[in-house]
Amino acid sequence: MIVINFLGTVSGIPSKERNHPAIALEYHYYKKETLLFDCGECVQKQLMLAKISFMDIEKIFITHWHADHFAGLIPLLQTMNLEKRKKELKIFGPEASKFVNNIINLGYFGLRFPVKAIDVPFEGNKISKIDESKEYEIFSVPVLHTVPSVAYCFKEKDRWRIDKEKLEALKIKSGRWLKKLKECGKIEIKGKNIKIEDIGRLESGLKVVYTGDTKPCDNVVELAKNADVLIHDATFSEEDEDEQKYHSSVRDAAIIAKKAEVKKLILTHISRRYQSEDVKKLEEEAKKYFENSMVAKDMMKIVLKRTNSPRTLQPG
Amino acid sequence: MIVINFLGTVSGIPSKERNHPAIALEYHYYKKETLLFDCGECVQKQLMLAKISFMDIEKIFITHWHADHFAGLIPLLQTMNLEKRKKELKIFGPEASKFVNNIINLGYFGLRFPVKAIDVPFEGNKISKIDESKEYEIFSVPVLHTVPSVAYCFKEKDRWRIDKEKLEALKIKSGRWLKKLKECGKIEIKGKNIKIEDIGRLESGLKVVYTGDTKPCDNVVELAKNADVLIHDATFSEEDEDEQKYHSSVRDAAIIAKKAEVKKLILTHISRRYQSEDVKKLEEEAKKYFENSMVAKDMMKIVLKRTNSPRTLQPG
Repeated sequence: MIVINFLGTVSGIPSKERNHPAIALEYHYYKKETLLFDCGECVQKQLMLAKISFMDIEKIFITHWHADHFAGLIPLLQTMNLEKRKKELKIFGPEASKFVNNIINLGYFGLRFPVKAIDVPFEGNKISKIDESKEYEIFSVPVLHTVPSVAYCFKEKDRWRIDKEKLEALKIKSGRWLKKLKECGKIEIKGKNIKIEDIGRLESGLKVVYTGDTKPCDNVVELAKNADVLIHDATFSEEDEDEQKYHSSVRDAAIIAKKAEVKKLILTHISRRYQSEDVKKLEEEAKKYFENSMVAKDMMKIVLKRTNSPRTLQPG
Repeated sequence: MIVINFLGTVSGIPSKERNHPAIALEYHYYKKETLLFDCGECVQKQLMLAKISFMDIEKIFITHWHADHFAGLIPLLQTMNLEKRKKELKIFGPEASKFVNNIINLGYFGLRFPVKAIDVPFEGNKISKIDESKEYEIFSVPVLHTVPSVAYCFKEKDRWRIDKEKLEALKIKSGRWLKKLKECGKIEIKGKNIKIEDIGRLESGLKVVYTGDTKPCDNVVELAKNADVLIHDATFSEEDEDEQKYHSSVRDAAIIAKKAEVKKLILTHISRRYQSEDVKKLEEEAKKYFENSMVAKDMMKIVLKRTNSPRTLQPG
């Protein structure tokens, strides 16, 4: 199960209702793991409100080094230090080594836990696998903004599920050999050669893509292909579109969602000029191009399971 | 008139109720001027809630370079830039040149307005005048913390007020000559030599002192002598006092307030271990040593006038 927590959803200048960008993705499998995508101001306050521990965060993915996307890192690192963190923290981003080094040397930190910066490619069109665990992979791709910027994809690994009927037809009891079959793809048992595809079906892992700041971009279409959720920059309504700004409009984001054939589009990085009463209009605008569109709010949660449609929990 | 806005009142790790340290001092004379003392995370959100414009801030005074006291600067500078600020911003602090330079080179800022860093002495016992306008002076003094740190004093200049009865006794009509008399201290009019002390009385300017983080410190007693308001580090209750921490307890702060003969003590930099129900106990503890003591809350305001006692406006 994945829970996507929208901690901050505004563009450059914050408002009373919306904080600077930050998304906490909680991945529940055997254990829970928390990944943070961007880390704007007030991230600590928002994590507290969402009841997510600072100390559970293992990896932080920064899309680009504009202050609204990273300034929360500085007090967060200090808090982790004061809380006596020992575990390594990984920070991914374009030019991460340079900027993480700048941050660590910024004030009187005296960090007592290891911070590892991982540089992510920010030029060209190639999708890069930048991280992998037993359960998921993280990919990135360069996007179109004023400074080196990337989009990220969290992709749960596909898994083989055993089809009980097929298993019964073989007249072999289930047991530990099934685990080995899932791992190796084939096995010999009681003189029979069994392939995983004979008795299993491949279940797709969940896929979530977050663009950070970008103009409409073909790389995002590639990265987001068939995603369960695409979280896209949608700074302006189509009326207020501004080519100079290197951001996307609501329409741009919806067209990308359609091209990528995603299941659900969440519009974020909303300019402070739009008040809560404008949200419906923005959503209607997006729905003209892609039906399953929704504007993010601070503290909104999306719950994703392999077996169900996404469920949205609104704040309050 | 001075309005002291407590934007953040917690120590190192923020809580749901308290943000990282920041105090906005609004000085109303002919015009309004806003000075910011420390600039912790979420300062923009808190300024918005207090209805103080980001753009009104002319000067920022950082007590020391721990992230909880300065991390809000980074997104605040970005916002001022996005809002097309042109006016110079002055940032004072111990080693300000070094740290402000680090901050400006931290991300992709491209600042388009001038930022002037002013280094403030952080060793020894001397009180330094670090800034002056027509209406007020700012002083600093080194304090006792783990890194170079200072306390600040905002001192409104004393002003001569004309005593109407004395003026009438002289049988000279009031006029422009009074302004000149206030400026020069003496004047010859209708053959008479008049000194300002003959017809005026000196009205003391308001005085506010903020310690930042410090152990109890004689320099603070000197700086805060007869202050209208002393805002003092009070991280712990006396039970939880910890010599190792280079902070003050509630008792420490109250004893300093008594020694300095201030009018009012505001306890701030409160550890997150104390909930709102503990505030009364902390206040009682302080009152054993200094009666006019009070624990700060986020969004609390203190209104100071020369002619009245301070007035406290509680949030909500």
